[in-house]
Amino acid sequence: MLPKTPAKGMRDFLPKQFALRQQIMATIQKTYESYGFTRIETPAVENIELLTSKQGGDNEKLIFKILKRGEKLENAAESELCDLGLRYDLTVPLSRFYANNIGQLPSVFKAMQMDSVWRADRPQRGRFRQFVQCDIDIIGEETNLAETELISATTQALSNLGFDNVTVHLSDRRLLTALADKCGYSDSQKPSVFISLDKLDKIGFSGVEQELSAIDKDKAGEFINLIQSIVNSDNPFETCADVLNGYLPDSVKQNIQDILYVTNSLIQNGKVVFDVTLVRGMGYYTGTIYEVYADGLNSAIAGGGRYDKMIGRLTGQDIPACGFSIGFERIALLMEERGITFDCNRGIAVLLDKRMTADERTNVIRQCADLRKQNNVTVLNKIKNFGYQLKQLREQGYADIYEYRNGVLSKID
Amino acid sequence: MLPKTPAKGMRDFLPKQFALRQQIMATIQKTYESYGFTRIETPAVENIELLTSKQGGDNEKLIFKILKRGEKLENAAESELCDLGLRYDLTVPLSRFYANNIGQLPSVFKAMQMDSVWRADRPQRGRFRQFVQCDIDIIGEETNLAETELISATTQALSNLGFDNVTVHLSDRRLLTALADKCGYSDSQKPSVFISLDKLDKIGFSGVEQELSAIDKDKAGEFINLIQSIVNSDNPFETCADVLNGYLPDSVKQNIQDILYVTNSLIQNGKVVFDVTLVRGMGYYTGTIYEVYADGLNSAIAGGGRYDKMIGRLTGQDIPACGFSIGFERIALLMEERGITFDCNRGIAVLLDKRMTADERTNVIRQCADLRKQNNVTVLNKIKNFGYQLKQLREQGYADIYEYRNGVLSKID
Repeated sequence: MLPKTPAKGMRDFLPKQFALRQQIMATIQKTYESYGFTRIETPAVENIELLTSKQGGDNEKLIFKILKRGEKLENAAESELCDLGLRYDLTVPLSRFYANNIGQLPSVFKAMQMDSVWRADRPQRGRFRQFVQCDIDIIGEETNLAETELISATTQALSNLGFDNVTVHLSDRRLLTALADKCGYSDSQKPSVFISLDKLDKIGFSGVEQELSAIDKDKAGEFINLIQSIVNSDNPFETCADVLNGYLPDSVKQNIQDILYVTNSLIQNGKVVFDVTLVRGMGYYTGTIYEVYADGLNSAIAGGGRYDKMIGRLTGQDIPACGFSIGFERIALLMEERGITFDCNRGIAVLLDKRMTADERTNVIRQCADLRKQNNVTVLNKIKNFGYQLKQLREQGYADIYEYRNGVLSKID
Repeated sequence: MLPKTPAKGMRDFLPKQFALRQQIMATIQKTYESYGFTRIETPAVENIELLTSKQGGDNEKLIFKILKRGEKLENAAESELCDLGLRYDLTVPLSRFYANNIGQLPSVFKAMQMDSVWRADRPQRGRFRQFVQCDIDIIGEETNLAETELISATTQALSNLGFDNVTVHLSDRRLLTALADKCGYSDSQKPSVFISLDKLDKIGFSGVEQELSAIDKDKAGEFINLIQSIVNSDNPFETCADVLNGYLPDSVKQNIQDILYVTNSLIQNGKVVFDVTLVRGMGYYTGTIYEVYADGLNSAIAGGGRYDKMIGRLTGQDIPACGFSIGFERIALLMEERGITFDCNRGIAVLLDKRMTADERTNVIRQCADLRKQNNVTVLNKIKNFGYQLKQLREQGYADIYEYRNGVLSKID
């Protein structure tokens, strides 16, 4: 027998599930369009050199690689076997897209993408091997107008999806670097320090301190004390700026201050707070980073940051870029669990008798065509187990069911 | 330098191209919904056993195969290297979907799919390695109500896309078989006979006869004469039925007659004709087959047929099934070539001055939020080359452009 189930970690979507997902996407797209973002699409498959160019961080370990075609593959090393792979995110392909189409794009390009990505991750609850990402990016805008627009648009999209109390956590990679500098960490130690700090919500301050001690026993205590003194102060951002006096350029401080001020004045469904413990995984971030938390949920439902050095690897010249990604699958799961469904009145079902003549059949189908100008109309043959058929049709959302009897279309109650 | 271009045979879609494609899909989806079809989704990746189970015909030679992960691959045969592949059509995955979810689907399931498929074909004009297919299928309906609904819905969708004069060509695989039987072809010869006949539009009758002679010299002439006598008669269907008297069950004849009668009474934008030369490539068809031709185009823009034996390979029990596929890429290309674009008034562009204070910035962005209740509004910093920026914005479809000067938002003409 052939396999009936989808490939490991992947999913079939039934009509109701698909409808919910499509409705969420439509809501997000409409919101983003109202902010001037336009949707683009790149292929699911990219050249393997692009996918393994050290932009994708740990995701590069999770690539589904595609076998070369039409070649002798015996005794070949793995690196020679594959020339293509499935994309693991939408940011690396966006950079390639921008470089490839730069002549046809406006000087500030506001891109929207909603598409599947693939990662050969260990499947677990809420984590799949094919899943949708939902990104907006502003390319070519060096000022924080990019950040304020991204934060406004994303919180508005979440509001339109029913998230009416969100908190945006904001920080800056340069600020983390300054903190590490102040404690005397070397450049080579910093990535490990940040990776440990990123685990704070999972392992707590004591856990982070333990990991930091393994990197450098002397500096661990000072770093943790610094972070805690900022977190526990009345005004974490002012405290942090004071602590980093001499280590952080004024412009970086001013930038965060501006973004906090502008976005807090604008957002209707929540607030934006400075969070010194924010790290975010990807190595390509060069400036601001941000995540969105919703009431009652302890992991982020959206996140992003500025990556001013990535596109230059493809164009040869650095171009400022800044993005925000909504956790589509997280939100779809939440909405499904909360039983949120969209109106599924499918319209009218018309039941025919198999013994009807071609003339009768034509006559009734023509009547259905008239009904169809105003309604969705499905035409079906009556089955033997008529009660079961009616039950199924009601479950599918058919409000009105008609049958054709003695030349007349009459409603069944 | 990293690769900037998409992988061979694949495409980037710019905002305007994406918008056209999405609009075509929305038109098709809305039409199909009005006929009671509901959209589903399956993963892009399937287990390789499913994809190589001899349902996919020649497409199985074009599979993008995915390398196994985390295993020793040295000295492995190609068949041991891969456990997954990208789908090459939507019909094989639909059959798996149906078998996997049968308990949650209605007794007659009207499925719609619009999704990418991948084939490692030789790229050429209008043929790509990733492309969208757009299928409707009715599973569980053994009568020709399935065919009449599929033909009505598909021609209506084409009408809604602007194809106002189409011809549906209709035949039946059992009729082709009967023709071959009458000429004395053996069962093992039939597939080659049909493959040759399928080339008629490319190589003409003399070309087909030449190929048939290679299969069986004696029968080639008789077969070609039969086909030509039918094609050239005043009523090809009646002639064919007469010719096949004794070779074709009455029910098959009656079935085609009914479909021709009912659909011709219903379709507004064209007609349905019997075409004895219609073959269609896939081996899984068991009954009716059909293709749609549009005025002035010499290859089909849609096609499908009945495949009553395919799902049984997954469920263990035959279930009648019937499908119709619109050539999405063909249609998108035609519409792009004809310069058909959808209204792209993107709304309002508001230009800020970089030297504005955070207060001014907040003030104007708040005004934009008000405007956004009725319009799409993009907020951008003014660039040095202001004239170029204006030109770009007009090209992008921004009808109204405002700038903020001395505390006031004023329109630029």
